Amino acid sequence: MADHNALPLIVLAEKFASLPGIGMKTAQRLAYYVMSMEDEAVEEFAKALTDAKRNVHSCKCCQNLTEREICPICSAEERDKGIICVVETPKDVTAFERTREYNGVYHVLHGLISPMDNVTPDKIRVKELLSRISQGNIKEVIMATNPTVEGDATAMYIAGLLKPLGIKVTRLAFGLPVGGILEYADEVTLYKALENRNTM
Amino acid sequence: MADHNALPLIVLAEKFASLPGIGMKTAQRLAYYVMSMEDEAVEEFAKALTDAKRNVHSCKCCQNLTEREICPICSAEERDKGIICVVETPKDVTAFERTREYNGVYHVLHGLISPMDNVTPDKIRVKELLSRISQGNIKEVIMATNPTVEGDATAMYIAGLLKPLGIKVTRLAFGLPVGGILEYADEVTLYKALENRNTM
Repeated sequence: MADHNALPLIVLAEKFASLPGIGMKTAQRLAYYVMSMEDEAVEEFAKALTDAKRNVHSCKCCQNLTEREICPICSAEERDKGIICVVETPKDVTAFERTREYNGVYHVLHGLISPMDNVTPDKIRVKELLSRISQGNIKEVIMATNPTVEGDATAMYIAGLLKPLGIKVTRLAFGLPVGGILEYADEVTLYKALENRNTM
Repeated sequence: MADHNALPLIVLAEKFASLPGIGMKTAQRLAYYVMSMEDEAVEEFAKALTDAKRNVHSCKCCQNLTEREICPICSAEERDKGIICVVETPKDVTAFERTREYNGVYHVLHGLISPMDNVTPDKIRVKELLSRISQGNIKEVIMATNPTVEGDATAMYIAGLLKPLGIKVTRLAFGLPVGGILEYADEVTLYKALENRNTM
């Protein structure tokens, strides 16, 4: 925005523009929209920002985001603490919980190993996973990172650390998506589906 | 987000989703992004929101958004206070200022007359324009609303109020955009360009 615009509006637009996926044009539109909001709604928005940042942190156990010391999943008595599903982000936990089928617990890495982007194993929550496993009673660790170069590399790296400890490490199955059409499947997915075929 | 997500994160995502053009998926992504920001940056963002809302208001004269009582354009001595360019939004002021050619002042309506959307003339800043004009010394009022049904209707309505007062009312010229290609111009634009042709 040019000089004749009110400074606080320019500042606000710049803040919006600093968010991922929001360009300067959209940011200006959002800043103008804020001007049309009720005073109270704007105060609530500001409070939501600081509240989330102040009160939400990593669960001491699984590293998922929570407002408690230990998250609801880790503190749920009915969940099997012997099975740990290792994921990249808190969003992945949400995805698994939507299946309503998984009864183990999680470990959120908050990233994937990617030497190209300067993300080494010490930059993600690997040592927290190891210290958790060293406390014993872990039956299985499921590597549930994405089937990408970084996801596979991270899964392989962690599996390499855990196998010598005698822990069962598994990887999510890759194959045709349910409801998918064979004709449209890419060749790698189809190869995985063939390779991992099951007896009927 | 499901129940196991931290409540402050859900609240923040809902706030983002209440902004125009931001869906729930994007809002969740933004909420997670806020968690990765520095504490200080989040506080500054929250402050920018409340600062903009608290300190920015309409200029007493032209109704444009400003943090002062009278905006910089209205208070600039070198600007011609006898010519008023009437626009819909503060963004339109920015657009005209970018041309660096206009030396008059503005009047921001903050909307267009649209009976379909229940926007009657009393809901936009028409009476502020009239009271401003009644103070005298106005040579020309340029109707610079968009060339849409609502923009044209608003321009016609205001022109109808001002002409009996003996004030010169003009409308922006419509024609081919500079750099535009004749072949791709729509028929209404082409007709306007033909109708408003100038002697060379």
